[in-house]
Amino acid sequence: MIPLDAETYTLDEDIRSRLRMDTSGLVPAIAQDAGTGEVLMMAWMNEEALAATLATREGTYWSRSRQELWRKGATSGNTQRVASVALDCDGDTILLRVEQQGPACHTGAPTCFSGRELTLGEAS
Amino acid sequence: MIPLDAETYTLDEDIRSRLRMDTSGLVPAIAQDAGTGEVLMMAWMNEEALAATLATREGTYWSRSRQELWRKGATSGNTQRVASVALDCDGDTILLRVEQQGPACHTGAPTCFSGRELTLGEAS
Repeated sequence: MIPLDAETYTLDEDIRSRLRMDTSGLVPAIAQDAGTGEVLMMAWMNEEALAATLATREGTYWSRSRQELWRKGATSGNTQRVASVALDCDGDTILLRVEQQGPACHTGAPTCFSGRELTLGEAS
Repeated sequence: MIPLDAETYTLDEDIRSRLRMDTSGLVPAIAQDAGTGEVLMMAWMNEEALAATLATREGTYWSRSRQELWRKGATSGNTQRVASVALDCDGDTILLRVEQQGPACHTGAPTCFSGRELTLGEAS
Protein backbone atom coordinates (compact mmCIF):
# COMPACT_ATOMS: atom_id res chain seq x y z
CA MET A 1 0.00 0.00 0.00
CA ILE A 2 1.37 3.38 -0.99
CA PRO A 3 1.65 5.70 2.05
CA LEU A 4 -0.91 8.44 1.79
CA ASP A 5 1.56 11.22 2.49
CA ALA A 6 4.20 9.91 0.09
CA GLU A 7 2.77 11.67 -2.92
CA THR A 8 -0.04 13.84 -4.08
CA TYR A 9 -2.76 12.72 -6.41
CA THR A 10 -4.13 14.66 -9.32
CA LEU A 11 -7.47 13.94 -10.85
CA ASP A 12 -7.75 13.16 -14.54
CA GLU A 13 -9.02 16.24 -16.40
CA ASP A 14 -11.88 14.40 -18.08
CA ILE A 15 -13.16 13.12 -14.73
CA ARG A 16 -12.73 16.53 -13.13
CA SER A 17 -14.85 18.10 -15.84
CA ARG A 18 -17.70 15.69 -15.05
CA LEU A 19 -17.57 16.22 -11.27
CA ARG A 20 -20.11 18.58 -9.79
CA MET A 21 -18.85 19.35 -6.32
CA ASP A 22 -20.73 21.28 -3.67
CA THR A 23 -19.68 24.73 -2.52
CA SER A 24 -17.13 23.11 -0.17
CA GLY A 25 -15.51 21.25 -3.07
CA LEU A 26 -16.88 17.91 -1.91
CA VAL A 27 -19.09 15.13 -3.26
CA PRO A 28 -20.80 12.39 -1.25
CA ALA A 29 -19.29 8.94 -1.78
CA ILE A 30 -21.28 5.79 -1.01
CA ALA A 31 -19.33 2.65 -0.14
CA GLN A 32 -21.06 -0.62 -0.93
CA ASP A 33 -19.79 -4.13 -0.16
CA ALA A 34 -18.86 -5.63 -3.54
CA GLY A 35 -19.78 -9.11 -2.35
CA THR A 36 -22.97 -8.75 -0.36
CA GLY A 37 -24.30 -5.50 -1.85
CA GLU A 38 -24.74 -3.99 1.63
CA VAL A 39 -24.41 -0.23 1.80
CA LEU A 40 -21.61 0.24 4.32
CA MET A 41 -21.22 3.99 4.84
CA MET A 42 -21.27 7.40 3.23
CA ALA A 43 -18.33 9.77 3.40
CA TRP A 44 -17.05 12.76 1.44
CA MET A 45 -14.46 13.11 -1.27
CA ASN A 46 -12.66 16.07 -2.72
CA GLU A 47 -10.77 15.87 -5.99
CA GLU A 48 -7.62 14.56 -4.36
CA ALA A 49 -9.48 11.88 -2.38
CA LEU A 50 -11.07 10.62 -5.59
CA ALA A 51 -7.74 10.73 -7.40
CA ALA A 52 -6.08 8.82 -4.55
CA THR A 53 -8.88 6.23 -4.49
CA LEU A 54 -8.61 5.64 -8.24
CA ALA A 55 -4.80 5.47 -8.17
CA THR A 56 -4.34 3.29 -5.09
CA ARG A 57 -7.60 1.30 -5.14
CA GLU A 58 -7.91 2.00 -1.41
CA GLY A 59 -11.03 3.85 -0.22
CA THR A 60 -9.81 7.37 0.59
CA TYR A 61 -11.98 10.26 1.73
CA TRP A 62 -11.82 13.85 2.92
CA SER A 63 -12.36 14.30 6.63
CA ARG A 64 -14.54 17.38 7.13
CA SER A 65 -13.82 17.42 10.87
CA ARG A 66 -10.05 17.06 10.57
CA GLN A 67 -9.79 18.82 7.19
CA GLU A 68 -7.43 16.21 5.84
CA LEU A 69 -7.26 13.29 3.46
CA TRP A 70 -8.23 10.10 5.24
CA ARG A 71 -7.51 6.59 4.08
CA LYS A 72 -10.23 4.40 5.52
CA GLY A 73 -8.70 1.85 7.89
CA ALA A 74 -5.32 3.60 8.12
CA THR A 75 -5.49 3.42 11.91
CA SER A 76 -8.19 0.77 12.50
CA GLY A 77 -7.02 -1.68 9.86
CA ASN A 78 -10.56 -1.77 8.46
CA THR A 79 -9.49 -0.88 4.95
CA GLN A 80 -11.52 -0.85 1.76
CA ARG A 81 -10.05 -2.44 -1.34
CA VAL A 82 -11.82 -0.80 -4.24
CA ALA A 83 -13.39 -3.02 -6.92
CA SER A 84 -15.10 -0.23 -8.88
CA VAL A 85 -15.88 3.47 -8.77
CA ALA A 86 -18.78 5.07 -10.62
CA LEU A 87 -19.88 8.68 -10.98
CA ASP A 88 -23.64 9.20 -11.23
CA CYS A 89 -25.63 10.69 -14.10
CA ASP A 90 -25.20 14.29 -13.00
CA GLY A 91 -21.70 13.94 -11.55
CA ASP A 92 -22.52 14.81 -7.97
CA THR A 93 -22.38 11.39 -6.27
CA ILE A 94 -19.77 8.64 -6.26
CA LEU A 95 -20.45 4.94 -5.72
CA LEU A 96 -17.61 2.68 -4.58
CA ARG A 97 -17.87 -1.09 -4.57
CA VAL A 98 -15.33 -2.32 -2.04
CA GLU A 99 -13.96 -5.34 -0.27
CA GLN A 100 -14.35 -4.17 3.31
CA GLN A 101 -11.91 -5.54 5.89
CA GLY A 102 -13.63 -5.89 9.27
CA PRO A 103 -16.49 -3.61 10.33
CA ALA A 104 -17.11 -0.51 8.21
CA CYS A 105 -18.50 1.61 11.04
CA HIS A 106 -16.35 3.34 13.66
CA THR A 107 -18.76 1.94 16.29
CA GLY A 108 -17.68 -1.59 15.37
CA ALA A 109 -20.99 -2.38 13.64
CA PRO A 110 -20.77 -4.07 10.22
CA THR A 111 -22.25 -0.99 8.52
CA CYS A 112 -23.08 2.55 9.63
CA PHE A 113 -26.78 1.68 9.16
CA SER A 114 -26.85 -1.66 11.03
CA GLY A 115 -29.82 -1.85 13.41
CA ARG A 116 -30.73 1.79 12.84
CA GLU A 117 -34.08 1.44 11.07
CA LEU A 118 -36.73 4.10 11.67
CA THR A 119 -40.38 3.25 12.19
CA LEU A 120 -42.56 3.49 9.08
CA GLY A 121 -46.20 4.51 8.90
CA GLU A 122 -48.96 1.94 8.51
CA ALA A 123 -48.90 0.11 5.19
CA SER A 124 -51.72 1.32 2.97
CA MET B 1 -51.33 7.02 -2.54
CA ILE B 2 -51.87 10.18 -0.51
CA PRO B 3 -51.48 13.32 -2.69
CA LEU B 4 -48.32 15.12 -1.71
CA ASP B 5 -50.02 18.50 -1.41
CA ALA B 6 -52.99 17.19 0.59
CA GLU B 7 -51.27 17.52 3.93
CA THR B 8 -48.05 18.49 5.57
CA TYR B 9 -45.79 16.06 7.33
CA THR B 10 -44.09 16.64 10.64
CA LEU B 11 -41.09 14.68 11.75
CA ASP B 12 -41.15 12.77 15.01
CA GLU B 13 -39.25 14.72 17.67
CA ASP B 14 -36.98 11.80 18.59
CA ILE B 15 -35.93 11.33 14.96
CA ARG B 16 -35.45 15.07 14.49
CA SER B 17 -33.11 15.16 17.49
CA ARG B 18 -30.92 12.49 15.87
CA LEU B 19 -30.76 14.15 12.44
CA ARG B 20 -27.66 16.15 11.64
CA MET B 21 -28.57 18.22 8.63
CA ASP B 22 -26.17 20.35 6.62
CA THR B 23 -26.28 24.13 6.62
CA SER B 24 -29.07 24.01 4.00
CA GLY B 25 -31.19 21.79 6.26
CA LEU B 26 -30.65 18.73 4.07
CA VAL B 27 -29.25 15.22 4.42
CA PRO B 28 -28.20 12.89 1.60
CA ALA B 29 -30.53 9.92 1.12
CA ILE B 30 -29.36 6.78 -0.65
CA ALA B 31 -31.99 4.63 -2.37
CA GLN B 32 -31.14 0.95 -2.67
CA ASP B 33 -33.21 -1.72 -4.43
CA ALA B 34 -34.63 -3.90 -1.64
CA GLY B 35 -34.54 -6.97 -3.85
CA THR B 36 -31.27 -6.81 -5.77
CA GLY B 37 -29.25 -4.62 -3.42
CA GLU B 38 -28.31 -2.28 -6.28
CA VAL B 39 -27.70 1.32 -5.28
CA LEU B 40 -30.20 3.21 -7.43
CA MET B 41 -29.62 6.91 -6.77
CA MET B 42 -28.80 9.54 -4.20
CA ALA B 43 -31.06 12.50 -3.52
CA TRP B 44 -31.63 14.97 -0.69
CA MET B 45 -34.16 15.12 2.09
CA ASN B 46 -35.22 17.85 4.43
CA GLU B 47 -37.24 17.14 7.58
CA GLU B 48 -40.55 17.19 5.74
CA ALA B 49 -39.32 14.88 2.97
CA LEU B 50 -38.21 12.35 5.58
CA ALA B 51 -41.49 12.71 7.48
CA ALA B 52 -43.47 12.23 4.24
CA THR B 53 -41.38 9.19 3.29
CA LEU B 54 -41.94 7.57 6.68
CA ALA B 55 -45.66 8.38 6.72
CA THR B 56 -46.53 7.41 3.14
CA ARG B 57 -43.87 4.76 2.45
CA GLU B 58 -43.25 6.47 -0.90
CA GLY B 59 -39.73 7.78 -1.59
CA THR B 60 -40.01 11.55 -1.23
CA TYR B 61 -37.16 14.02 -1.53
CA TRP B 62 -36.37 17.72 -1.57
CA SER B 63 -35.59 19.12 -4.99
CA ARG B 64 -32.69 21.58 -4.61
CA SER B 65 -33.23 22.94 -8.13
CA ARG B 66 -36.98 23.44 -7.81
CA GLN B 67 -36.95 24.10 -4.05
CA GLU B 68 -39.94 21.88 -3.45
CA LEU B 69 -40.91 18.51 -2.07
CA TRP B 70 -40.68 15.88 -4.77
CA ARG B 71 -42.31 12.47 -4.71
CA LYS B 72 -40.15 10.21 -6.85
CA GLY B 73 -42.17 8.98 -9.82
CA ALA B 74 -45.00 11.49 -9.37
CA THR B 75 -44.73 12.44 -13.05
CA SER B 76 -42.76 9.52 -14.54
CA GLY B 77 -44.58 6.74 -12.71
CA ASN B 78 -41.23 5.37 -11.55
CA THR B 79 -42.19 5.37 -7.89
CA GLN B 80 -40.33 3.93 -4.93
CA ARG B 81 -42.29 1.89 -2.41
CA VAL B 82 -40.26 2.06 0.79
CA ALA B 83 -39.40 -1.17 2.59
CA SER B 84 -37.14 0.37 5.25
CA VAL B 85 -35.47 3.62 6.24
CA ALA B 86 -32.33 3.80 8.37
CA LEU B 87 -30.38 6.74 9.77
CA ASP B 88 -26.64 6.22 10.01
CA CYS B 89 -24.44 6.21 13.12
CA ASP B 90 -23.93 9.97 13.19
CA GLY B 91 -27.34 10.95 11.84
CA ASP B 92 -26.19 12.64 8.66
CA THR B 93 -27.11 10.06 6.01
CA ILE B 94 -30.32 8.17 5.26
CA LEU B 95 -30.55 4.76 3.61
CA LEU B 96 -33.82 3.74 1.95
CA ARG B 97 -34.50 0.21 0.77
CA VAL B 98 -37.16 0.48 -1.90
CA GLU B 99 -39.16 -1.42 -4.46
CA GLN B 100 -38.35 0.64 -7.54
CA GLN B 101 -40.95 0.77 -10.32
CA GLY B 102 -39.24 1.08 -13.69
CA PRO B 103 -35.87 2.78 -14.12
CA ALA B 104 -34.59 4.83 -11.18
CA CYS B 105 -32.60 7.31 -13.29
CA HIS B 106 -34.15 10.20 -15.17
CA THR B 107 -32.06 9.13 -18.19
CA GLY B 108 -34.00 5.87 -18.36
CA ALA B 109 -31.08 3.81 -17.07
CA PRO B 110 -31.84 1.26 -14.33
CA THR B 111 -29.72 3.21 -11.83
CA CYS B 112 -27.99 6.59 -11.84
CA PHE B 113 -24.65 4.73 -11.80
CA SER B 114 -25.34 2.21 -14.61
CA GLY B 115 -22.41 2.02 -17.04
CA ARG B 116 -20.64 4.97 -15.42
CA GLU B 117 -17.57 3.28 -13.97
CA LEU B 118 -14.32 5.25 -13.84
CA THR B 119 -10.97 3.73 -14.73
CA LEU B 120 -8.93 2.48 -11.79
CA GLY B 121 -5.16 2.46 -11.44
CA GLU B 122 -3.15 -0.68 -11.99
CA ALA B 123 -3.82 -3.38 -9.39
CA SER B 124 -0.86 -3.66 -7.01
